[in-house]
Amino acid sequence: MAKELDFLTKRSEDYSKWYNELVVKADLAEQADVRGCMVIKPYGYAIWEKMQRILDDKFKETGVQNAYFPLLIPKSFLSREAEHVEGFAKECAVVTHYRLKTNETHDGVIVDPAAKLEEELIIRPTSETIIWNTFKNWIHSYRDLPLLVNQWCNVMRWEMRTRLFLRTSEFLWQEGHTAHATREEAEERAKMMLKVYADFAENCMAVPVVQGVKSETERFAGALDTYTIEAMMQDGKALQSGTSHFLGQNFGKAFEVQFLNRDNQPEYAWATSWGVSTRLMGALIMTHSDDNGLVLPPALAPTQVVIIPIYKNDEQLQKVDEAVAPIVAELRQMGISVKYDNADNKRPGFKFADYELKGVPVRLVLGARDLENGTVEVMRRDTLEKETQRLEGIAARVKDLLGDIQQNIFQKAKTFRDAHIYECEDYEEFKQRVKDGGFFLCHWDGTPETEARIKEETQATIRCVPFGVEQTPGTDMVSGKPAVARVLIARSY
Amino acid sequence: MAKELDFLTKRSEDYSKWYNELVVKADLAEQADVRGCMVIKPYGYAIWEKMQRILDDKFKETGVQNAYFPLLIPKSFLSREAEHVEGFAKECAVVTHYRLKTNETHDGVIVDPAAKLEEELIIRPTSETIIWNTFKNWIHSYRDLPLLVNQWCNVMRWEMRTRLFLRTSEFLWQEGHTAHATREEAEERAKMMLKVYADFAENCMAVPVVQGVKSETERFAGALDTYTIEAMMQDGKALQSGTSHFLGQNFGKAFEVQFLNRDNQPEYAWATSWGVSTRLMGALIMTHSDDNGLVLPPALAPTQVVIIPIYKNDEQLQKVDEAVAPIVAELRQMGISVKYDNADNKRPGFKFADYELKGVPVRLVLGARDLENGTVEVMRRDTLEKETQRLEGIAARVKDLLGDIQQNIFQKAKTFRDAHIYECEDYEEFKQRVKDGGFFLCHWDGTPETEARIKEETQATIRCVPFGVEQTPGTDMVSGKPAVARVLIARSY
Repeated sequence: MAKELDFLTKRSEDYSKWYNELVVKADLAEQADVRGCMVIKPYGYAIWEKMQRILDDKFKETGVQNAYFPLLIPKSFLSREAEHVEGFAKECAVVTHYRLKTNETHDGVIVDPAAKLEEELIIRPTSETIIWNTFKNWIHSYRDLPLLVNQWCNVMRWEMRTRLFLRTSEFLWQEGHTAHATREEAEERAKMMLKVYADFAENCMAVPVVQGVKSETERFAGALDTYTIEAMMQDGKALQSGTSHFLGQNFGKAFEVQFLNRDNQPEYAWATSWGVSTRLMGALIMTHSDDNGLVLPPALAPTQVVIIPIYKNDEQLQKVDEAVAPIVAELRQMGISVKYDNADNKRPGFKFADYELKGVPVRLVLGARDLENGTVEVMRRDTLEKETQRLEGIAARVKDLLGDIQQNIFQKAKTFRDAHIYECEDYEEFKQRVKDGGFFLCHWDGTPETEARIKEETQATIRCVPFGVEQTPGTDMVSGKPAVARVLIARSY
Repeated sequence: MAKELDFLTKRSEDYSKWYNELVVKADLAEQADVRGCMVIKPYGYAIWEKMQRILDDKFKETGVQNAYFPLLIPKSFLSREAEHVEGFAKECAVVTHYRLKTNETHDGVIVDPAAKLEEELIIRPTSETIIWNTFKNWIHSYRDLPLLVNQWCNVMRWEMRTRLFLRTSEFLWQEGHTAHATREEAEERAKMMLKVYADFAENCMAVPVVQGVKSETERFAGALDTYTIEAMMQDGKALQSGTSHFLGQNFGKAFEVQFLNRDNQPEYAWATSWGVSTRLMGALIMTHSDDNGLVLPPALAPTQVVIIPIYKNDEQLQKVDEAVAPIVAELRQMGISVKYDNADNKRPGFKFADYELKGVPVRLVLGARDLENGTVEVMRRDTLEKETQRLEGIAARVKDLLGDIQQNIFQKAKTFRDAHIYECEDYEEFKQRVKDGGFFLCHWDGTPETEARIKEETQATIRCVPFGVEQTPGTDMVSGKPAVARVLIARSY
């Protein structure tokens, strides 16, 4: 089995290379022949679909409805909100023409200069502008509020250095946009959606996250507050996994979205926006997987159980087939996705390696001897432990095992994460240690100058002011000035 | 009740205006402030989501997997397949730059001339080119086939005259792309997917369709055969509701997708593609709706049952609330989506009109007198018939009623459609009658010349050579030449 897997670089050798290889070899995604864009392959997309469906249900439980807004945004919309344009104009794809025509040599097409747009359109990097331009027509009275919409779509940000799932020019995401009558309600919604993300990350993805609020420098362009969930990868770097923004009345004012309040007075609507993207796939892969390949939480695994027969001849295979059929039926009855792989053109060793690479949580192996003994070999992907069990009642035990695996990989990731969160009061020590990864809880004087210096000297950034950390008085480790808060600092993806 | 609805133009007055108004007033969609693009509003999107989920399940039952391919396609890819570029180059949005910058007066943004792309990218009008360019890397042996993928995404075709759902520059759709080792298997797949579409249209949308094959002129650009489902709207015009294409080896050759067959010989892969789009929303609306608003098939209605209380005071309302609670619970238990609208800020008459406009299939009204009598008023949206029924056992009867409505609106549409299909052998008669709508079964000599003449003189087109129509010898009604087939001709959307 080891032989088949030699092709995957070990994490300890080169974590970054391991990731890049794993994404491609596990059939999750690949680079497209379009600069910076990816193809999400069926296996990768199946995981993303599971994420989508669970998240979508959670959003709807909070009253959110889906809708769809245009891909293209008039250039001038971007300029309406001063900070927003600063943040997004630099990296957007611009549509300038609407037609091609045959070239003079009749062997290709060229842009038809006669088909130039009066105003250029940009491909949405995010949709606050076009959505608030629409909300203007939907919101007239406090009775129209709150307005809670979400869209699942593609967005584009022209990135110079791209990595599959983590940073691509085009990516898939959901973006929620809400409008409210009061500041309090909008702030509460922004925090509520962060909690939805955190619950999803921890309970479905089995990825522990630190929740907190971004520093001013790291805020979304146009937000008054950006809330974030930060996950720790196995190399100790942070991965921002979801953000929720309290946008104040910035977009309400920029797009003149006013409503009559209960006292019949005009007011600008209060806004939030919040999103998670295919970047979550990167977080999922990098948190759990190992040198044999993917490790998937059962809650998101497209195939939760694989059953592989061992046989020498057709007669033996037929007996295994017969024994497996009721187990498959019973597992499906329980809502468990199971694949019985009795394909004849691949050796069992190849299958073992392949399903390990793909991260299938539980593997059952059944041979002629097992049938005689009434046993089955059970392997759990997270620990790679194998155990021979009685065949009777196996479905129920597999179900329990899936629950165990879900818990175990979360606990493992959390133990790792917690062991790599350090309090640090000394900047020299910090500079040394941050190279090896980890989250550092440090006192900060609240100035962008200190933040910039840390970033320049260490490539680490303030990830957030974490919630639930006791904030005691202290001194900024860099400037020596009184601290305003203990913040979480780390290198990040 | 009539008063609230006066605002909707009657179908008999102006069918086209009725449609445009209905789409907006029923909160399905609206024109965006981006030329030719639409905003799909939450209520419209909820119907689209139901369609998506049902179709997606049907695709997966046939072995199809979802994936995602890039939005942007290098311009040169389009030119690879000669017919394909002819069909799509004329109407595509072209990305030429990847950055904006602040203008000189610092009050807006302009395209940064330094950020010009070496090769322009077009926004996908359809994805055969980028997908077959990717398949090249996925297909090496007959063992890699068939490859059955689908993506749900947005596409863009620059349309000069747009109408919500029916023809918009950007629209949402699914596009399935399959690769096969043999011609027969590919042809079978193209026909299989047409059948999936036809079943969905008839059983879920309750829209009867004619299945058939397109004439050469009307084929998808790059296809050897295009299969279609054609639905009849209430004005007798045809609406092409889904197409499935047998692409032969055209894309296999254009993108050099070769595989080793069982005899170890290289062969080009055989292709299909097939799609339905948000255009289906147009078909749904125009097939069933009436002068009071939408009529939705229960299978696709976001809310299947609405319950409205009639009360004079809080005490009465409380009693209705109590009586309704177990009914709501029972309906939900049965998997029926139900809304109890006891909002205090709208009169019952307004609610009645609004839910009629929105096409909610069943309405229950419960007042103080009903409680005394143990009765409830039941209205079915399709016929607008009201009936007082016993409250006891109402949930089960509502469930049956939903089934009845689903059947009834299909039957009604089919009866209408069948009554407007005419055999016609005389061109002068055809020219007169086609103005009033309807599908005409006529003998055709098989030439593009005759086809072009019919189109020019009557604005009607050959929709398809229908399946299941007995093909008897005959004479082309236009040219008088021997006919090759009886075809379906109609004006269309």
